[in-house]
Amino acid sequence: MTETSRPDDAFHVFDTTLRDGAQREGINLTVSDKLAIARHLDEFGVGFIEGGWPGANPRDTEFFARAREEIDFRHARLVAFGATRRAGGSAADDPQVKALLDSGAEVITLVAKAHDRHVELALRTTLDENLEMVRDTVAHLVAAGRRVFVDCEHFFDGYRANPGYAKAVVRTAAEAGADVVVLCDTNGGLLPAQIHAVVSTVLADTGARLGIHAQDDTGCAVANTLAAVDAGATHVQCTANGYGERVGNANLFPVVAALEIKYGRRVLPEGRLREMTRISHAIAEVVNLTPSTHQPYVGLSAFAHKAGLHASAIKVDPDLYQHIDPEQVGNTMRMLVSDMAGRASVELKGKELGIDLGGDRELVGRVVERVKERELKGYTYEAADASFELLLRAEAGTAPLYFEVESWRAITEDRPDGTHANEATVKLRAKGETIHAAGEGNGPVNALDRALRAGLERIYPELAKIGLVDYKVRILEGRSGTGSTTRVLISTSDGRAEWSTVGVADNVIAASWQALADAYTYGLLRAGVEPA
Amino acid sequence: MTETSRPDDAFHVFDTTLRDGAQREGINLTVSDKLAIARHLDEFGVGFIEGGWPGANPRDTEFFARAREEIDFRHARLVAFGATRRAGGSAADDPQVKALLDSGAEVITLVAKAHDRHVELALRTTLDENLEMVRDTVAHLVAAGRRVFVDCEHFFDGYRANPGYAKAVVRTAAEAGADVVVLCDTNGGLLPAQIHAVVSTVLADTGARLGIHAQDDTGCAVANTLAAVDAGATHVQCTANGYGERVGNANLFPVVAALEIKYGRRVLPEGRLREMTRISHAIAEVVNLTPSTHQPYVGLSAFAHKAGLHASAIKVDPDLYQHIDPEQVGNTMRMLVSDMAGRASVELKGKELGIDLGGDRELVGRVVERVKERELKGYTYEAADASFELLLRAEAGTAPLYFEVESWRAITEDRPDGTHANEATVKLRAKGETIHAAGEGNGPVNALDRALRAGLERIYPELAKIGLVDYKVRILEGRSGTGSTTRVLISTSDGRAEWSTVGVADNVIAASWQALADAYTYGLLRAGVEPA
Repeated sequence: MTETSRPDDAFHVFDTTLRDGAQREGINLTVSDKLAIARHLDEFGVGFIEGGWPGANPRDTEFFARAREEIDFRHARLVAFGATRRAGGSAADDPQVKALLDSGAEVITLVAKAHDRHVELALRTTLDENLEMVRDTVAHLVAAGRRVFVDCEHFFDGYRANPGYAKAVVRTAAEAGADVVVLCDTNGGLLPAQIHAVVSTVLADTGARLGIHAQDDTGCAVANTLAAVDAGATHVQCTANGYGERVGNANLFPVVAALEIKYGRRVLPEGRLREMTRISHAIAEVVNLTPSTHQPYVGLSAFAHKAGLHASAIKVDPDLYQHIDPEQVGNTMRMLVSDMAGRASVELKGKELGIDLGGDRELVGRVVERVKERELKGYTYEAADASFELLLRAEAGTAPLYFEVESWRAITEDRPDGTHANEATVKLRAKGETIHAAGEGNGPVNALDRALRAGLERIYPELAKIGLVDYKVRILEGRSGTGSTTRVLISTSDGRAEWSTVGVADNVIAASWQALADAYTYGLLRAGVEPA
Repeated sequence: MTETSRPDDAFHVFDTTLRDGAQREGINLTVSDKLAIARHLDEFGVGFIEGGWPGANPRDTEFFARAREEIDFRHARLVAFGATRRAGGSAADDPQVKALLDSGAEVITLVAKAHDRHVELALRTTLDENLEMVRDTVAHLVAAGRRVFVDCEHFFDGYRANPGYAKAVVRTAAEAGADVVVLCDTNGGLLPAQIHAVVSTVLADTGARLGIHAQDDTGCAVANTLAAVDAGATHVQCTANGYGERVGNANLFPVVAALEIKYGRRVLPEGRLREMTRISHAIAEVVNLTPSTHQPYVGLSAFAHKAGLHASAIKVDPDLYQHIDPEQVGNTMRMLVSDMAGRASVELKGKELGIDLGGDRELVGRVVERVKERELKGYTYEAADASFELLLRAEAGTAPLYFEVESWRAITEDRPDGTHANEATVKLRAKGETIHAAGEGNGPVNALDRALRAGLERIYPELAKIGLVDYKVRILEGRSGTGSTTRVLISTSDGRAEWSTVGVADNVIAASWQALADAYTYGLLRAGVEPA
């Protein structure tokens, strides 16, 4: 662990993906998932990683034990989350508080109630006893050598209801030894101007070091976090990709990007911001959610340009329609090919693919027409560069023909033991030969893929290096049940690069077949194989 | 058209979904789509609907012609978008300006350059001629009886580079007769505090009526819009669901909800806010994008509660974890069943389904265990209420058994003419009979669905009223190609209610089969059919 690689302690980037983020609908983390995410966050360079609530949840207890053994954190400190002791007891005898110490985490975040109504309704104790619970628990953990942060739950709603009491909780926590008192907009209902006003006042009235924890229920969590920083907060709690309860939490990535790029404040170790896009997508993959294409800074579309007007201007100067250089955050500019695109977009896209179309106005016009016509049927070339290049080559008369398909067939059958048999056959012509091949798989598309490869690999051994890495299905008309049009996007890799292809048909198997055929054709083209 | 149903002119809610929103990656609108969206927006009650750029795009020209004929707007005024006249010409002779008048729109938004560098690099004219283009075009349209708004493109970046010139554009537009001058953060790089400062200064220095057009590249478009309103802007430009170029535009729904609920400002006709969730989803359906589950206010997850801690508190009082009553925006509170859920969530969920589990602690424990185990395999009960109820009934011993499946089989075959044949057979037992049925469809799942119905409808005529309305496929592990686990979610309707079921398997057909079997079982249960 190299202490010097950490930004100093004056400003905290505190990540709670593993605790608060995990409460997002659709997220279900195993201990291995949590370890993988912790590694990504440490690599990104956040200062603190809140790992969960040891003691309350066996999975979290296991996570802390394994993280201590298995991860050598280079930047982050691991944080255990827990609650103040029970009413009427003592922190020293509280089993939940003991579990926090047993986790071995050097930093502990304690959640405390700061809203008088919640103390009475949810904790069912008195306002004074709640203050004593805060004081006793913080002091006990500090005496045991831990650094303590206190999350004041429902702080802003509590402040509106009873500002004196809300501030008393802040003062009590700070006086008992908490390093940071975090003001939480737990229900997420506030707007930036309100956050700014309250944080300013609380800072002036208590002198405590303040943090902010914002939820996105008004769509303002990033702005609320920045408003608190403007008002003097020096600790921001965020989650990767904004995962969290209900709408979600303040998104770590745009908060950090704003602090580093817009505020010019160094909050990550040198050079880490350039890893942001990759790390955002890697975490999405671990939690098994498709990365949001429209996430600020890191989304696939964040620097994608579609409008013909913009495309012409970007030919002049990319800064005209981008607020930052996408490389600062590890993203890239993309020109989209779509039926709104004019010639400028198709020319730029050709250039991106290494095909100069500048001299052939008639060809560009034909490509624009063909894209329009195919997109009307449901194809999308925005997400399928390889299929677009094949289309472009088809119009230019330079499309390679490696094989011709005569027919194919896929059968899925239920077995009495509850398993399934999937078998496919394909009939192809390649290099003058007629090939009839069969394959089995764990699904009909997988069986077709194997049959196709079985048929072609003998003739094109280059296919051995090429394999599918991603497969996406989209039903295009959501209101007509299984009778809808299906779009399949396939990503394929040769170990060095990835490419995407698209297929559209009235059923998932036929659509997959088109995308598969494009995927292998493009792979052979990339490998420099001469068409037969 | 009832004038009185409109909020007064003092504050404008201006929607540009059909123009700027359509530039989102993945959106491709037909004229019918645009008409459908315009109807939804009018129903929601926005004041202005920007329909497109007549003249520049044949589809937009057709849209204006058809909108005039086919839509009787109750609240909104239709707005045509266009540019200031060409450099060196006159507005009266400019064909693009003439097309705006020809569109018949009573309101016209003109885009004007406000950034000196863009005038020189993109327009390739002088700063003075640009001012003259603004003056001449606005004056010409006003003289022709139109109301004119001027969008100052790149205003904030232009203001930073040359504040004097940026303000000169605002003054020129206002003096020439523009009703509103809209300051656009075209590249979307600003933060709320910066927006507030610039809008305040420009308002003080020019006295023009100001509007705001924010893009979401910093994740702050909603907050930026509200910051401009705080500084005195009285016209907000937004798009439904935040659709737009790159990351997107300021999202209409959270902006309007903040203005109405948080600011207490009436910006929609009475009662329309309650339609917001429905209208947001309807527009997503027209543009053929899955509604964002995590969109503020209107997302499926916006008022969904998962954490055991929250669930217990919500049993006490829903306001403890919600910033507003979801009914204010037409949404509903949902309790999520997931492996993070404790007993409280399962009990509340049972209650929601009309099954009282309060008395049976052992049964609740078994259900929690079973949900955990199935979710590990990839099932999700958060989005499949009907499958959850069947699981709950199975544990309680009250699951209905309408039919038993012996086997099924699906075949998809490529035909020489490029079409496909899909055939399925099923073997079932119901009411003591063995049934062997076959079906054809436009895909293998559709064929299976028809075979299953063909087999069952004779025995259960109630099925005639039940049909699939939505079908979703999700590949659960995105990095292993077609060999991944597949989850299928099916929505089914009997014309009065809809229910959702889930299936998970190693292939899409087997997963679909499970969800289909649950869908029909639940439908028969709902119809009150006695199990055989």
